Amino acid sequence: MTREVNITRMDAFTYRESIKSGDSVMLVPVGSVEQHGAHMPLGVDTMLSTKIAELTAARIDALVGPAVSVGYKSQQRSGGGNHIVGSFGFDADTVVGVCRTLVRELSRHGVKKVVFVNGHYENYQFIYEGVDLALRDLAGSSQGASQVMMLSYWDFVTPQVIARLYPDGFPGWDVEHGGVMETSLMLEYFPELVWMDRLIDHAAAELPLYDLLPADASLTPESGCLSSGKVSTAQKGQILAESIMAGMVDAISSRF
Amino acid sequence: MTREVNITRMDAFTYRESIKSGDSVMLVPVGSVEQHGAHMPLGVDTMLSTKIAELTAARIDALVGPAVSVGYKSQQRSGGGNHIVGSFGFDADTVVGVCRTLVRELSRHGVKKVVFVNGHYENYQFIYEGVDLALRDLAGSSQGASQVMMLSYWDFVTPQVIARLYPDGFPGWDVEHGGVMETSLMLEYFPELVWMDRLIDHAAAELPLYDLLPADASLTPESGCLSSGKVSTAQKGQILAESIMAGMVDAISSRF
Amino acid sequence: MTREVNITRMDAFTYRESIKSGDSVMLVPVGSVEQHGAHMPLGVDTMLSTKIAELTAARIDALVGPAVSVGYKSQQRSGGGNHIVGSFGFDADTVVGVCRTLVRELSRHGVKKVVFVNGHYENYQFIYEGVDLALRDLAGSSQGASQVMMLSYWDFVTPQVIARLYPDGFPGWDVEHGGVMETSLMLEYFPELVWMDRLIDHAAAELPLYDLLPADASLTPESGCLSSGKVSTAQKGQILAESIMAGMVDAISSRF
Amino acid sequence: MTREVNITRMDAFTYRESIKSGDSVMLVPVGSVEQHGAHMPLGVDTMLSTKIAELTAARIDALVGPAVSVGYKSQQRSGGGNHIVGSFGFDADTVVGVCRTLVRELSRHGVKKVVFVNGHYENYQFIYEGVDLALRDLAGSSQGASQVMMLSYWDFVTPQVIARLYPDGFPGWDVEHGGVMETSLMLEYFPELVWMDRLIDHAAAELPLYDLLPADASLTPESGCLSSGKVSTAQKGQILAESIMAGMVDAISSRF
Amino acid sequence: MTREVNITRMDAFTYRESIKSGDSVMLVPVGSVEQHGAHMPLGVDTMLSTKIAELTAARIDALVGPAVSVGYKSQQRSGGGNHIVGSFGFDADTVVGVCRTLVRELSRHGVKKVVFVNGHYENYQFIYEGVDLALRDLAGSSQGASQVMMLSYWDFVTPQVIARLYPDGFPGWDVEHGGVMETSLMLEYFPELVWMDRLIDHAAAELPLYDLLPADASLTPESGCLSSGKVSTAQKGQILAESIMAGMVDAISSRF
Amino acid sequence: MTREVNITRMDAFTYRESIKSGDSVMLVPVGSVEQHGAHMPLGVDTMLSTKIAELTAARIDALVGPAVSVGYKSQQRSGGGNHIVGSFGFDADTVVGVCRTLVRELSRHGVKKVVFVNGHYENYQFIYEGVDLALRDLAGSSQGASQVMMLSYWDFVTPQVIARLYPDGFPGWDVEHGGVMETSLMLEYFPELVWMDRLIDHAAAELPLYDLLPADASLTPESGCLSSGKVSTAQKGQILAESIMAGMVDAISSRF
Repeated sequence: MTREVNITRMDAFTYRESIKSGDSVMLVPVGSVEQHGAHMPLGVDTMLSTKIAELTAARIDALVGPAVSVGYKSQQRSGGGNHIVGSFGFDADTVVGVCRTLVRELSRHGVKKVVFVNGHYENYQFIYEGVDLALRDLAGSSQGASQVMMLSYWDFVTPQVIARLYPDGFPGWDVEHGGVMETSLMLEYFPELVWMDRLIDHAAAELPLYDLLPADASLTPESGCLSSGKVSTAQKGQILAESIMAGMVDAISSRF
Repeated sequence: MTREVNITRMDAFTYRESIKSGDSVMLVPVGSVEQHGAHMPLGVDTMLSTKIAELTAARIDALVGPAVSVGYKSQQRSGGGNHIVGSFGFDADTVVGVCRTLVRELSRHGVKKVVFVNGHYENYQFIYEGVDLALRDLAGSSQGASQVMMLSYWDFVTPQVIARLYPDGFPGWDVEHGGVMETSLMLEYFPELVWMDRLIDHAAAELPLYDLLPADASLTPESGCLSSGKVSTAQKGQILAESIMAGMVDAISSRF
Repeated sequence: MTREVNITRMDAFTYRESIKSGDSVMLVPVGSVEQHGAHMPLGVDTMLSTKIAELTAARIDALVGPAVSVGYKSQQRSGGGNHIVGSFGFDADTVVGVCRTLVRELSRHGVKKVVFVNGHYENYQFIYEGVDLALRDLAGSSQGASQVMMLSYWDFVTPQVIARLYPDGFPGWDVEHGGVMETSLMLEYFPELVWMDRLIDHAAAELPLYDLLPADASLTPESGCLSSGKVSTAQKGQILAESIMAGMVDAISSRF
Repeated sequence: MTREVNITRMDAFTYRESIKSGDSVMLVPVGSVEQHGAHMPLGVDTMLSTKIAELTAARIDALVGPAVSVGYKSQQRSGGGNHIVGSFGFDADTVVGVCRTLVRELSRHGVKKVVFVNGHYENYQFIYEGVDLALRDLAGSSQGASQVMMLSYWDFVTPQVIARLYPDGFPGWDVEHGGVMETSLMLEYFPELVWMDRLIDHAAAELPLYDLLPADASLTPESGCLSSGKVSTAQKGQILAESIMAGMVDAISSRF
Repeated sequence: MTREVNITRMDAFTYRESIKSGDSVMLVPVGSVEQHGAHMPLGVDTMLSTKIAELTAARIDALVGPAVSVGYKSQQRSGGGNHIVGSFGFDADTVVGVCRTLVRELSRHGVKKVVFVNGHYENYQFIYEGVDLALRDLAGSSQGASQVMMLSYWDFVTPQVIARLYPDGFPGWDVEHGGVMETSLMLEYFPELVWMDRLIDHAAAELPLYDLLPADASLTPESGCLSSGKVSTAQKGQILAESIMAGMVDAISSRF
Repeated sequence: MTREVNITRMDAFTYRESIKSGDSVMLVPVGSVEQHGAHMPLGVDTMLSTKIAELTAARIDALVGPAVSVGYKSQQRSGGGNHIVGSFGFDADTVVGVCRTLVRELSRHGVKKVVFVNGHYENYQFIYEGVDLALRDLAGSSQGASQVMMLSYWDFVTPQVIARLYPDGFPGWDVEHGGVMETSLMLEYFPELVWMDRLIDHAAAELPLYDLLPADASLTPESGCLSSGKVSTAQKGQILAESIMAGMVDAISSRF
């Protein structure tokens, strides 16, 4: 039986035992509640960041903390736009506040090495701000210094894997919303929550070099996805995940 | 097969279909990440509020929205205190912000009947503030009025059930933290996450009529629970759940 | 002549003299501006919490600080609801901010033992948050640690007194809004501000197990009170006050 | 017997009756808790602004709302400085929040004509911001427009009165902290809270043309006052009050 | 060639060299974007405070930091009012936040002596709050204490200069908005941005002793200025500037 | 002589005349105060975004509003990191607040078409949040809808120009901090503020796929730049600017 890595399913005594070395690494998944087309559920970003965090943690004797499921507003060029019914866009303030507290509370617990594993493109800067403010909060404390790593998991897919999985050219991670990467990873880890028969196929969205608010709804494909997940397979998901996790293991191990 | 009620596992097209009547009721679970002794996991409050919301929703053709897992700081007289390692205490501001956004985003989606199902004692006033501010935000909008119900699920256990399950006297819901009700409900719904062999048995905590900050750690039993879950059974969990859900179905149906 | 205990009526030199031991206890009353029916003024909660704080302070050589008169929004199940004209509901943020500053400023003055004496049911969690944040603010300071006690004064009425004064059964402190306890205490301490001839008699309100926003105005009796103060007397007020103050003296003395 | 003008001493039914014309004027006193030397209590600013508001209201059939007693930080050039023990300095945010809510709540009650009567020099800009934000809040509402007047009461003392009461030259209202005007007004209205025998006599403070933080404590006289109240009398208080109230009556009547 | 004093035109290596003594003084100009009649540009306050800061810094081997151009809302009695098109009024929160960060970042850089040079009447209290909060932020830090001076430049014009330049009586700095002082200083330093042929001549505005919100637009002269700049000359600008700078040099030198 | 486009150098009467059509486009530059190596000043981002906005505005009869010079914290992978002395990092809250107010105030003035021209990589998400909140503020207003475009100017450099100017491969805009693009644009527009003889030449920084806080200072080259500006020329600046402005003119014209 596998060791439990997710602390929300662990009792407090076991948790305290797990971190008592003072050297534990905690991975914190950050997702969203956002439409992902007709073929995947609203929870994709939280599910994938959590799963990737758990599998990575299992490889390096790390833990996984409470997932942040309040994602920043979906933006048209990376998530279709927050005008779409089905996306829940939280204010910067709230996303920042949740991440800030997590760093502060983990520090109080004695966990000084934290990795935010982002799975929702729009979140990144707000995670960064939350961490920065938490470290400012902690600056005067007697708890000892925290070190925090922040990453978006797709950045760890290697150029080799990209070349292999996107033979017709890679559109960029921003328009991957609901596309081959996310769909393949879902097929690998949550196949019961992917409905390939409902997938709407279309060319990748061609979005302008700017944002417009209020959004011009006509720029987002009706599917709500920015590229098509049609050629997704669980096998591609496995290849992507392996590439991602290898990179993350490497990054975390070398830093912490 | 049962209809899916939790929108985070539903695709956006199905979600939009589900709410198109303009009359849908959305239950929003509110939990925490908080120590619950040696025999239950940190996620108890989020798990139970979500499960109860889902089962209730299934009975009345309602939906369940994204769970709020950022709970307010554990307080000594109802959760053992936030000084304990394993509890994650979020600031009022953050809890308020998450609830406020949910009401506002649901309104934008066209969902005007919302029920917050609280599973963490300390949260209640902050949910209330979030809802009040959201309704103020929406007051000038053209989206039509929202109506929001707020409740803590244990308030629906009937006096009859209390008399039956606590034959030696009922200590009050505040000290039920990690006690018979929560443990029994977990045994009923998440038996794989209850470790009765690790349960620490002790008399109910006798807490003063006031709070003290910093907390006096000696007042919380070493288990972190405020009463003992020793006599918990899945059957009691079933009786409790039935009482709760019957009451909630009644309340929601009569109001919405 | 009695020693002045309320520092707002004391000059700064005397104040500094009074706290120079470094061991002083400061009681801070917290009230509201809220309708209390046709027979009592809007200021009841501030008046009673201040008076009780002053009388208690006089017994234990403590001081009374500036009363917090900005109370949180009246809620239907404990104050009739904030939709009623005559109640002034302050946002959580403001109540928290006032309490936070008081702890911080008292600490700067050298007063490290503070007791918040709450007289408005809805305030409690916001006082708590203000205190928690103030202690976080002060954590890195060189001023020495503060200890803060928080209480709602009615929690100190003993079961014996309840049994004696409510022979027909006690409805709970939440529905005591404008009822026998508050009216009796007002008759004892501020008889010129009670107009018994205007009191509207009615059965205790039967309120649901949940809150609803916007409130359903029909649930609050037209008096604005949740139970009737009809059988109130100054003598009952004296008995209640004695019970409360004895309990508070005991609690404060044993802790500080 | 005089009509009650202060709504905190009025019951809600009478209050509602008083404002039902929709044309009522509400005066809101704004004070502080701040050291005022050895001869006057910490509450001077709140007491005087409240008394002046009440007497003015009585002349023009207006009402007086809940006093704001959370004053902004004492500044060295107008209040001695907030480093002094005895002054309670609230953050801008809190002062703004209290004033903002008052305008908003009064509007909800149907009171659309509000006058803030400031009695603490440092407050003015923060009252202004609170009012401005409240009017922004209300801009989209259907409640009808509010009009708010803001003033500091001493600005209504006429040049004639100044010439008469300060024959040796007028030092300016900023250094009047604890000086002739405040002391005389206190002697007139609250003689039992003035201790002339404890008054510390000294020349008016000569303060620089700038502020310095942290304050240079040596610039504030040991009395904590910026000028001496030695020649104060109740009669001067009466003359000052008459001048102030005549001016305020005039201003309010001509505008509202 | 003159030494560069404004760090925004300096490279980072030179900047670090300039402050390495640990004893540098940094002047921070604070202005606004606000209408200044038909004869001067919106940027007057930022331009003048920056120029005065630069010339002063040049005399005392000090530096000039990034100008704060987000000014608080124009108020009718000192700037004509923020209802006028052309004025940009920032919330208190924003002005406070910018000033707070500047003190904190300068402290991190090693600059511990900061002078805010205000050029927009309405800003003063918000600069003060920003500085106070920054010093609170820094209180627990290990960076060493900062000292901050705050001033409005016109306060340094001597009575002699006022008597000389305003032979018909001085109306007060508040109504100097767009008047002789500002126009003369602009003529001296930015003559290409003054259009005397467009200047609208009129008597000084007679404003009431109170503020009113919403403002009564009829109280502000159509020019948007509160007094006339008609008799302005560059020579007067030179005299004013000399008086101001001499006073500031004196103040800064004697304190830092 | 060229028409003035920057409203901070324009008088209010001319400004009102310029926008009276109700159809004006306002470009708002957003920069920072941030180290840019030994060869360029701290103000680069504000200078370039303002210059590009002004030149673009001149081509399309648009205006340029007040530059936002409070930039978000420099991040290591795009600006070297905010630990470097010379960079001023503002909190998210402040950057958001400034942008939010600008949209709101421009709307009040009657300017409903706004383009934020970003010149500091880290700002983008915070500009977006500011705009989103401003549009929420304005949603209930009667002022008519605003439309806001947001862009980072470098995104408009065409692939053709990139291929021509970066013959050895393009490192990405993130590491362009202090590199060929910024240096060439500065040489074209502000040659007196570029000191090529001080430029420190080095290979492009190789930064990890994640951020780390506190930053690992050893990852940023000692120059503070992320790539070398050595081969920069004013001619390259001209080519870049032309490409950028052509793209921006096209985008703005087609949308507004």
